Amino acid sequence: MAIQASEQVPAGANDNLSIARAARLWPIEEIAHHLDLPGEAVEPYGRGIAKIDLSAMSILSQRPRGRYVVVTSMTPTPPGEGKTTTAIGLVQGLQRLGYTATVALRQPSMGPTLGLKGGATGGGYSQVLPMERINLHLTGDLHAVGAAHNLLAAMVDNHLHHRLTPELDPREILWQRVIDLNDRALRNIVLGLGGRGNGMPRQGSFEITAASEVMAVLALADSLADLRWRLGRLIVGLDREGQAVTAEQIGAAGAMTVLLKEALKPNLLQTLEHAPALIHAGPFGNIAHGNSSIIADHIGLHTSDFLVTEAGFGADMGAERFFNIKCRTSGLVPDAAVLVVTVRALKYHSGRHQVVTGKPLPASLLAEHPEEVLEGGANLLKQIDNVRAHGLTPVVAINAFPSDHPSEYAAIHELAASAGVRAVVSTHVRDGGEGALALAEAIAEAAEDNSDFHFLYPAELPLADKIERIATRLYGADGVDFSPQAQERLDAWQHEGYGNLPVCIAKTHQSLSADPKRLGAPKGWRLPVREVRLSAGAGFVYALAGDILTLPGFSASPAATRIDIDENGETVNLN
Amino acid sequence: MAIQASEQVPAGANDNLSIARAARLWPIEEIAHHLDLPGEAVEPYGRGIAKIDLSAMSILSQRPRGRYVVVTSMTPTPPGEGKTTTAIGLVQGLQRLGYTATVALRQPSMGPTLGLKGGATGGGYSQVLPMERINLHLTGDLHAVGAAHNLLAAMVDNHLHHRLTPELDPREILWQRVIDLNDRALRNIVLGLGGRGNGMPRQGSFEITAASEVMAVLALADSLADLRWRLGRLIVGLDREGQAVTAEQIGAAGAMTVLLKEALKPNLLQTLEHAPALIHAGPFGNIAHGNSSIIADHIGLHTSDFLVTEAGFGADMGAERFFNIKCRTSGLVPDAAVLVVTVRALKYHSGRHQVVTGKPLPASLLAEHPEEVLEGGANLLKQIDNVRAHGLTPVVAINAFPSDHPSEYAAIHELAASAGVRAVVSTHVRDGGEGALALAEAIAEAAEDNSDFHFLYPAELPLADKIERIATRLYGADGVDFSPQAQERLDAWQHEGYGNLPVCIAKTHQSLSADPKRLGAPKGWRLPVREVRLSAGAGFVYALAGDILTLPGFSASPAATRIDIDENGETVNLN
Repeated sequence: MAIQASEQVPAGANDNLSIARAARLWPIEEIAHHLDLPGEAVEPYGRGIAKIDLSAMSILSQRPRGRYVVVTSMTPTPPGEGKTTTAIGLVQGLQRLGYTATVALRQPSMGPTLGLKGGATGGGYSQVLPMERINLHLTGDLHAVGAAHNLLAAMVDNHLHHRLTPELDPREILWQRVIDLNDRALRNIVLGLGGRGNGMPRQGSFEITAASEVMAVLALADSLADLRWRLGRLIVGLDREGQAVTAEQIGAAGAMTVLLKEALKPNLLQTLEHAPALIHAGPFGNIAHGNSSIIADHIGLHTSDFLVTEAGFGADMGAERFFNIKCRTSGLVPDAAVLVVTVRALKYHSGRHQVVTGKPLPASLLAEHPEEVLEGGANLLKQIDNVRAHGLTPVVAINAFPSDHPSEYAAIHELAASAGVRAVVSTHVRDGGEGALALAEAIAEAAEDNSDFHFLYPAELPLADKIERIATRLYGADGVDFSPQAQERLDAWQHEGYGNLPVCIAKTHQSLSADPKRLGAPKGWRLPVREVRLSAGAGFVYALAGDILTLPGFSASPAATRIDIDENGETVNLN
Repeated sequence: MAIQASEQVPAGANDNLSIARAARLWPIEEIAHHLDLPGEAVEPYGRGIAKIDLSAMSILSQRPRGRYVVVTSMTPTPPGEGKTTTAIGLVQGLQRLGYTATVALRQPSMGPTLGLKGGATGGGYSQVLPMERINLHLTGDLHAVGAAHNLLAAMVDNHLHHRLTPELDPREILWQRVIDLNDRALRNIVLGLGGRGNGMPRQGSFEITAASEVMAVLALADSLADLRWRLGRLIVGLDREGQAVTAEQIGAAGAMTVLLKEALKPNLLQTLEHAPALIHAGPFGNIAHGNSSIIADHIGLHTSDFLVTEAGFGADMGAERFFNIKCRTSGLVPDAAVLVVTVRALKYHSGRHQVVTGKPLPASLLAEHPEEVLEGGANLLKQIDNVRAHGLTPVVAINAFPSDHPSEYAAIHELAASAGVRAVVSTHVRDGGEGALALAEAIAEAAEDNSDFHFLYPAELPLADKIERIATRLYGADGVDFSPQAQERLDAWQHEGYGNLPVCIAKTHQSLSADPKRLGAPKGWRLPVREVRLSAGAGFVYALAGDILTLPGFSASPAATRIDIDENGETVNLN
């Protein structure tokens, strides 16, 4: 028997839009006032949106710090399991319990919004508003990141063109260009053609703006000065002697900082139930750490009883980086974790169903099959363990869908009990904060007890061992196979003083392993690391364990062909 | 004898910045309130900036229309003659006379700001604030134009990749990509490399965002629906039969419109003396019409006694397009024109001095030489005539510099008197509105009399004849030499129904002729038109009469290498 299917709000596009349209925003100054933010630090940016000036930070740091909650998930299906809606629902639930609670989210990338349907603002009755502004431009932070990134690229090619010192090797340019669109034709280009007045010919490429190291820097910086310092350390290429050349040496870091001054201020918005939402920065979840900004979390933590933030992909990916990169960088200690699961994802991890990105879920996946939930449970148990590996006991949030069955919920409760963690059903998509009350209560309790947080590895552990630690302890690999090149680079960085940096493993998010087809909790495999790269500005090393596409392409029928205005000037078919 | 040179504020970079820093902005809501703008249409976008929602337009159109004043100039020297400061000074002067007056300006492009020193916000005591926001990002309109433009480009290449219908000829793609930076290495590229998953290999290029036809469309649209219609008409390339393919056929026009919804709202700011300033759209002044938006002018005209707008380059260029493209499109009739001259430009047009872009003016140009002013006067007289060719008698504004001499002003008065027009000295850079009182009085008077406005050519005149009319009547050419290709295209468009469009001639702005070295008012030359292009969305045909660089490059020492933050986080060396 399906649970009140007829009453559920499907997470379909038009319903999200109509719910969002029907909502009445509070003036954003009122939201800021509830947070007791210093008035002069609140800069409205169009209806329902404000930037928070960093001058607020020193004032706020005097205030007590709230509880820090991270929302992660089991290994997701291609459409995702609803971490964003859960994070939003949770703050709405906490608010109904009488707490002040702020949600901190990444800013969605515009390319995918125009490609596949976006929906990075939640869904149903757990949404952040205004949806249209969030999904397109917002306050221009992504554009500023793109401009700063591409300014450095232009200055690098200008440096080559004018043969400035230090003399760059045109065959060793590491800094590409970015664009916030799905544009496969820019993945591989030859630039600088047209004769000596038009630059130095060389091969180059574009990546999506979210993949920019500048975006990772924006997310990890804790002040304007720190931003300036990190930008100066960006490595753009090698000189004729093979030495790294930085943005500081190119003379670009100052201007890049100035271009990012507004972007460094977090964006304040509100949920459907007028809970504060901070949407700020959106680094990639594979080649970067996939978490929203440290500055936003600082502000939220010192203005609310709870700051709930979402970490990209599953607990092996986003949460691992939340703990080992973001918290290590910020010095903030998490108090609780939510692990989002769905009945459909558990059934998917039984390995009995084929799910194709961009296509509707197969009917077989929606039929009642509690035994498949148990079969797929290995993934959930491993991801619970992955959170526990950092000293936190997660609360399992079952994100309810109309096609779920009580027997399947019972199976999840059984799994959670076997692992000694709480599981609660959350109907926040249908019911808003009211549907997340049980989750909110569980988290409020968990945040009192959870105090055993620790990193997965110490900073001093050698880089290769850090990668191995993550692969074996969290992914369940038997070990790591480094290519000779990768091993050589890691050894070199170890000697060049980068050995204390945390690491980030770029692998598929659709499996605990490096193979998206291996579901559940795969065993008997090794992680192949073919290449490693240094994000010296952001402050981590990343390892490529699989093909990571850094510039998506449009399908033959992208969402952009349907997005339009109607006769009243209202946007249609967005999200 | 130099005029009070010691008291003058030089137009140097640091002085502008320190004057701007010392200024106290009024809340932008207060500026909006003075204009009696409907409160709900005013959307603050950070300190001192608001966007005006287009819902204001229907309300405002009920109100009486103010006087419409265009600011143009004689043929400028490379550093320019101060049209922007004059336009700003003039509204400050009009305000001191008790009128309400709004200035409408183009948004500066970010590339040149980071290349050479920018200064597109005026100077001295005639500036618009906040300078830093105006010069970098502002409210993101340029980024939105870039995103909409590049979305279409990505969809065109996606169309090629998926072989969608109508089938585009990859050798006939007319729609390039844009970037708001000086990046010469992107002028000529090969894209779509990397094998069949990565697009169709072909030659392409990037132009600066200001050169985008989308920018021209934004400036000429008078409503969201008109914007949508114009975007649909953009021509992206030819199909296999040689027929034009539009953005509508690619399915991009709707999403492009949605991306531009915020950008279509004009930006309200203020001058140092709290006069309202509308900064909106910034199309190129050669391959496009070089004027700020029609929507901003509409709003300013219905909220002020005077709307003063600046047209790019000299009267042969920006003012010609203001009259024959912008006013023709909007239906608005100008009431007065200011023709800005400087002593230095007149001396320069004597042909006795060498001025190099980016270098200080030679000392010889600053010495007292009234006879050189008279020698260069031919240019002034021709540009006066060029304004008169549209039925308006301009007021000559002598933009005062510390190095000017009274004997030189006398020479200008003599020139103006010989042409039967008024000339007034304006010290608005040094004195703000107080220095522009004489100019403001002259313009207030002129706006009462000037009622004879007419276009230079009727819409029905064939395209080639329109080009010839401008070249012979305004530029002083003996005629036009069309390449066979150009002639063929014009004939074809004439038959395809584009014959009624106005035309835009892309030539150097440094001479009335097509040769930047020919100063004064050159005679005995013919205008070479090697190529013509159709901006079907913006609604004009443009003719290339000279090499027009649509993507600048950085020098060996761009401004960006000096722009930075200081220890207090304040921006240094911008502007």
